[in-house]
Amino acid sequence: MTQTQKQNKKQKTAITPTREENFPEWYQQVIKAADMAENSPVRGCMIIKPYGYAIWENMQRIFDGMIKECGVDNAYFPLLIPISFMSREAEHVDGFAKECAVVTHHRLVVDEENGGLKPASPLEEPYIVRPTSETIIGDSMARWTTSYRDLPLKLNQWANVMRWEMRTRLFLRTSEFLWQEGHNAFETGEEAREDALKMLNVYKDFAENTLAMPVLIGEKTADERFPGAIATFAMEGMMQDGKALQAGTSHDLSTNFAKSFDIKFQGRDGKEHYAHTTSWGISTRLIGGVIMTHADDDGLIVPPRIAPHQVVIIPVVRDDSRAEDINAYADKVVAELKAQGIRVKVDDREMRVPDKMWDSIKKGVPLRVEIGEREMDAGTLTHVRRDIGRDSKETCAVDEFVEKVSSILDSIHDGLFKRARDFRDSHIYDMSSLDEMRDFFKKGNIGFVRVDTKLLEQPAFEALKKEYSLTPRCMPFEDNGDKVYVGKSY
Amino acid sequence: MTQTQKQNKKQKTAITPTREENFPEWYQQVIKAADMAENSPVRGCMIIKPYGYAIWENMQRIFDGMIKECGVDNAYFPLLIPISFMSREAEHVDGFAKECAVVTHHRLVVDEENGGLKPASPLEEPYIVRPTSETIIGDSMARWTTSYRDLPLKLNQWANVMRWEMRTRLFLRTSEFLWQEGHNAFETGEEAREDALKMLNVYKDFAENTLAMPVLIGEKTADERFPGAIATFAMEGMMQDGKALQAGTSHDLSTNFAKSFDIKFQGRDGKEHYAHTTSWGISTRLIGGVIMTHADDDGLIVPPRIAPHQVVIIPVVRDDSRAEDINAYADKVVAELKAQGIRVKVDDREMRVPDKMWDSIKKGVPLRVEIGEREMDAGTLTHVRRDIGRDSKETCAVDEFVEKVSSILDSIHDGLFKRARDFRDSHIYDMSSLDEMRDFFKKGNIGFVRVDTKLLEQPAFEALKKEYSLTPRCMPFEDNGDKVYVGKSY
Repeated sequence: MTQTQKQNKKQKTAITPTREENFPEWYQQVIKAADMAENSPVRGCMIIKPYGYAIWENMQRIFDGMIKECGVDNAYFPLLIPISFMSREAEHVDGFAKECAVVTHHRLVVDEENGGLKPASPLEEPYIVRPTSETIIGDSMARWTTSYRDLPLKLNQWANVMRWEMRTRLFLRTSEFLWQEGHNAFETGEEAREDALKMLNVYKDFAENTLAMPVLIGEKTADERFPGAIATFAMEGMMQDGKALQAGTSHDLSTNFAKSFDIKFQGRDGKEHYAHTTSWGISTRLIGGVIMTHADDDGLIVPPRIAPHQVVIIPVVRDDSRAEDINAYADKVVAELKAQGIRVKVDDREMRVPDKMWDSIKKGVPLRVEIGEREMDAGTLTHVRRDIGRDSKETCAVDEFVEKVSSILDSIHDGLFKRARDFRDSHIYDMSSLDEMRDFFKKGNIGFVRVDTKLLEQPAFEALKKEYSLTPRCMPFEDNGDKVYVGKSY
Repeated sequence: MTQTQKQNKKQKTAITPTREENFPEWYQQVIKAADMAENSPVRGCMIIKPYGYAIWENMQRIFDGMIKECGVDNAYFPLLIPISFMSREAEHVDGFAKECAVVTHHRLVVDEENGGLKPASPLEEPYIVRPTSETIIGDSMARWTTSYRDLPLKLNQWANVMRWEMRTRLFLRTSEFLWQEGHNAFETGEEAREDALKMLNVYKDFAENTLAMPVLIGEKTADERFPGAIATFAMEGMMQDGKALQAGTSHDLSTNFAKSFDIKFQGRDGKEHYAHTTSWGISTRLIGGVIMTHADDDGLIVPPRIAPHQVVIIPVVRDDSRAEDINAYADKVVAELKAQGIRVKVDDREMRVPDKMWDSIKKGVPLRVEIGEREMDAGTLTHVRRDIGRDSKETCAVDEFVEKVSSILDSIHDGLFKRARDFRDSHIYDMSSLDEMRDFFKKGNIGFVRVDTKLLEQPAFEALKKEYSLTPRCMPFEDNGDKVYVGKSY
């Protein structure tokens, strides 16, 4: 290929660089091209723009319905946590005290010396902005739980949290992020364990059936546990660069937090017992996972069930005298699709038609519909699937489209899921020695290796881990902890 | 009346004290009895418990739909605001810098000297936890607005905010609260003014048609304006103690924030212009307003459109052998009501029937349904309206109930609204002198007085204002600023 040919080939994709050229930079450019989020003037904090936020709203709405079906109630607890709370659970403080925003004053006054404002009125006890809420919710649970009749207690909050991250990346790692954190309490350890596993499966269901993101589930190795948990269960996605994304975790906290926060109840035996608690969370990080699972070199592809617009209609007006008719025709199609519960909009901006098409591609709208004079005169429309592209272009009667649009969207969902699962499954390698692993990663191969968990206990693993930034991802349940997936990760 | 008679009379209400005996304490007890919220270990911050949060969720869902109809997009901006941002708008800093949580460090370390943890790693520039987001959103708007084609820009965020309040009261005034804050930008001042008024009317619509809370709308006097606004419009409710509750505000910010944050655009004339912005917000404070508007001496009354459960079914089992049948019958009724879109639950807790009834009364469930053997055998049910009580008790066929339940709920809404509006309208007094006002409040009368706005300019008004904690509430539009409502307020 000559330089010009290469250039031409390159220009065929809407995103520069491509995934192959520079995956991390491609990721940033996909977000930019889809107008989803951007960095803010606040260190490490992002601004979620309307298009990105609309995706999060759809995720929230669907997941919220799922947890309500599980008998979980939403509530809201304070943003600030007294620092003394953080000291109570020994492992927890090690895990979270290192990277938090500390509120020390409650007033600003004019700085006469240097101009501007400066903090005043120091607090007696500083607070931290919640990095997670086990402590403050544990404190409430202690007050709310007096008898076994008060259990199980299943609480969730949708909230912002802060962890002072040094290296940040939009959606994947930001100092502030949005999430849900579930906090359940039970009479027995068995119930708590069962619940932690149940919520993990709710996550898997959500990831696969809503986000079209295949996940592996299993238990984390001891090193990777949540600080204060006796077991952490996780779902792990494989991104298109072969790296893992921890997409959701569910923790069995045993009586650790109950003991630190005095969550006791009078049991059926009349005696006092500590409650067994769990916690479980997913966050805006999942949006990063959706991007890295599905997007391509032309930009975002939004799984249909969370797409802000499942269908975008682009009127193709060549003869201005017919513009009004075409718009009216498009509006009629919109009305019929809305009646089917489809999220649809007409792109009626003052903009060139090809620009609108590229915009819908870069934004990853699952189905693009084009309506021109020819379509209007024939009572038809032309539709194109984002996941397949021009090969899926088809013209059909409006009625027919209205009838089949839901199944096309389902088929897009299924196609995205299958493509991602096939990719993942073809990038998992069984290995039996550290040498084999080293060789694999040294050659620049991507994906997960599945090895005996015992292998990680070999002293040489530490060096290997460091050299290639590897981490054990999770131990699949079917192997009872004997096997573990290892890979690079976000 | 003897002491015992008084005692007996008193015990007939579920809430002690009654509204008449001690309104502020009654308010706290209503919240407690309905299990809506409680104080937290964090100074001035509340915990919104599941029942209170479910009311907020319903409010959010309905209001969110209303603003989306107005073309507003949700987005999310950082929790923290650099303190330098606060200095940029001179009035704004005076209004908000006095009472804010200041983040000065980003790490906790073990305090070797005193034990526990202490802040470490000071920030170069401190941040405040947002008390409102005009500044940080203005900073983004400046980047997003280059041409008149980018306008109008209509953004909203659902978020937590903090204002360091000294005296707090659940829902009404807390250091952290939840709200929505809308931030719109326009080409012209006329559009901005029109939008500020439009959003005020959306608030009025929401308050009256969703919360059944009648509100007076108008412009705030200059003293009561939002810091940085050229006009603040407000809706004011009258609580049952005659005090005002500012229930929502909408501000015309003119070009004040645009100038401070450089929100400029190239206009249709090819020249550079400053955008005209507005901001508008309602918060969890509205829940306090709902309580003080509708609740009675038996506890909360939730307006049906935001009620977590619009109907509660209480199975009345006298003969245990028929318990299963009654529960099955109740489940059938639930299914039929759910099919009508009614939020309904069966109270199947292990608890005495009268306790369940009182619980549904104290929680303010709009309609209570009782199903016993007699009802089951006759294919009927007995229903009681919370707003009217036993006088509304009626037994009818299940089918008939299913058919009319929506209209009963509407009628409860209308009844609550009318009762509150009648109360308010009968507690507004036209007056023409400060002496008349003083006399009115001195005698312990409750309600608003409506006077010439000019009266407030009299030097003696300041003393009167202080003596009776009066504030001008709003100047009704119909009087073009000539008249103003004055009253005590929350």
